[in-house]
Amino acid sequence: MSTPPPKLLRALAGETLERPPIWFMRQAGRSLPEYRELRSRAKDFISFCLDPEMAAEATLQPMRRFPMDGAIVFADILLIPLALGQDVWFEAGEGPKLGELPPIEALRDQVEASTGRLSAVGETLARVRAELEPDRALIGFAGAPWTVATYMLERKGSEREAARAYAYAHPDELDALLDVLVDATARYLVMQAKAGAQALKLFESWAESLSEDVFERIVVRPHAAIVEKVRAAGVTVPIIGFPRGAGAQVETYAEGVPVEGIALDVQATAALGRRLQAQGRCIQGALDNLLLREGGPALDARVDQLLAQWGDGPWIFNLGHGVLPDTPIENIARVVSRVTGKPVR
Amino acid sequence: MSTPPPKLLRALAGETLERPPIWFMRQAGRSLPEYRELRSRAKDFISFCLDPEMAAEATLQPMRRFPMDGAIVFADILLIPLALGQDVWFEAGEGPKLGELPPIEALRDQVEASTGRLSAVGETLARVRAELEPDRALIGFAGAPWTVATYMLERKGSEREAARAYAYAHPDELDALLDVLVDATARYLVMQAKAGAQALKLFESWAESLSEDVFERIVVRPHAAIVEKVRAAGVTVPIIGFPRGAGAQVETYAEGVPVEGIALDVQATAALGRRLQAQGRCIQGALDNLLLREGGPALDARVDQLLAQWGDGPWIFNLGHGVLPDTPIENIARVVSRVTGKPVR
Repeated sequence: MSTPPPKLLRALAGETLERPPIWFMRQAGRSLPEYRELRSRAKDFISFCLDPEMAAEATLQPMRRFPMDGAIVFADILLIPLALGQDVWFEAGEGPKLGELPPIEALRDQVEASTGRLSAVGETLARVRAELEPDRALIGFAGAPWTVATYMLERKGSEREAARAYAYAHPDELDALLDVLVDATARYLVMQAKAGAQALKLFESWAESLSEDVFERIVVRPHAAIVEKVRAAGVTVPIIGFPRGAGAQVETYAEGVPVEGIALDVQATAALGRRLQAQGRCIQGALDNLLLREGGPALDARVDQLLAQWGDGPWIFNLGHGVLPDTPIENIARVVSRVTGKPVR
Repeated sequence: MSTPPPKLLRALAGETLERPPIWFMRQAGRSLPEYRELRSRAKDFISFCLDPEMAAEATLQPMRRFPMDGAIVFADILLIPLALGQDVWFEAGEGPKLGELPPIEALRDQVEASTGRLSAVGETLARVRAELEPDRALIGFAGAPWTVATYMLERKGSEREAARAYAYAHPDELDALLDVLVDATARYLVMQAKAGAQALKLFESWAESLSEDVFERIVVRPHAAIVEKVRAAGVTVPIIGFPRGAGAQVETYAEGVPVEGIALDVQATAALGRRLQAQGRCIQGALDNLLLREGGPALDARVDQLLAQWGDGPWIFNLGHGVLPDTPIENIARVVSRVTGKPVR
């Protein structure tokens, strides 16, 4: 008799479970003291992400502490530009910095080799899979092309308006860059699935403030192309798309991108989630990370409201954004316990 | 025989016109050289807003240059905190600064007197109405309570995340502040309608990133209360609500707030706008101000797309956000001409 697949994969296959599987974006990270201790031993953040022993340990830390149904590999969305030949480094308290953007031909020439340069992420996945219990799913991920392109163009993390203006002023150059990223990202995700990832997530962190025609061109089209390439490579694991900040365009996204799961941000309405579920999509989300940090009875009430509003269809309990570094661990434990019914120490 | 009402009011009454009426948020402002000249003569921005002769001139400048169907009174959303006793000033290139927030009782005590302190805005409206052609509508406005509260709490323009956290940490204090703002704002809008405003607009500039339960509490409820108070005062002019950044929550807003018009931001989808029109709502929006600044054939194509997607129901052509200061005047003229069919010099 075979064991049933992990709850998280059952939800992604469209099954409505008695209670939703749960995991949190950035469940591995600075909110955990054991993470901060581990991180202090690495010389820099990129080295940390590319050290399979350390990255596997970071991935597993929250799994030991909480009965999460999914582990997400510890890595960074900016590993792709690094692998394509653009320098990337992190300065404490300042977010990422990137070197000069190589010419598009140079980037394109590096696509094939880029996946091999990220083999450490595959090793991390293999290590985690070997340690993780079989009823808990392992998730691989990548940044989506437009989000990664904003960093590559702006060479830092905060100038999205300039990148949005670039989308109008240089549409052909942007499309060429997105095409390179589609190709590199699809290869990277295929490698992760082959290394042990049982689900894949595509993070479009900056899907906000785009007009619908631009959203279709720079978000929907590249996501659909990645899914097609991943499927063409024979990879069948479920894919979760996360168009963060897309608002009502989440439905434009759902129409155009054949992913199994759609992650919703904090703004998601009950009605929008239900419409997606009615179409057979598994949704994921959407607790406010500010409320998780705040805690108290208001947190319990919102958790119960989410459980009630989406409980009749396939869904995965998660935040609408990542865990904030100053979130009390007891608040995370409280929510996980409330959702799973399992006591958390 | 009486002349028909201005196109903008016909659209707000639910009429589908041959072409949408048009006006632009921040059509009066730094994109116009005559505005910059006028502004240079005032000692500071607040004095400028509260000088009826200057503010009326600023309101009328774009009306002389372009065949806009609506003029919006030149004023600022931070006049309300000022009238309630919190100091407000603008530093060049830095946005607004606010003085210490008075205790809630002190603010509440100033509500009745606050409207009289803003009588200059009424005088501006009367002056503009006297000069404006009868087929062009005059719009009054106010900032919505949550948006104004974010400035009052943070004492500057950029820390919305802190204000969102405050909504969780101090719900009772926030609700009390919103109640004061509901009262002051309703009185201010009633005064504007009596002074000549033929439509009123409520700007919720920071409706983004809120979870639906919080959105209902701090956006929908206060907006609905303002509309009720304005109607209870016998004012029947149409009201436009603008929950900027609300994404799919625009529909939550439309259900809860009985405004005649709903202004949509850049993200609005064709489908969402059509659903609101099908419910008899007049929509307004939603051209990207970055594309207006960029210009060229892509601008024409997007204008045509908007005209096609929403042309079968009541709507008002506008931007999804304000005109950017460095927008070429010829781009504004090009769009207005394309929409109205009138040549613009």
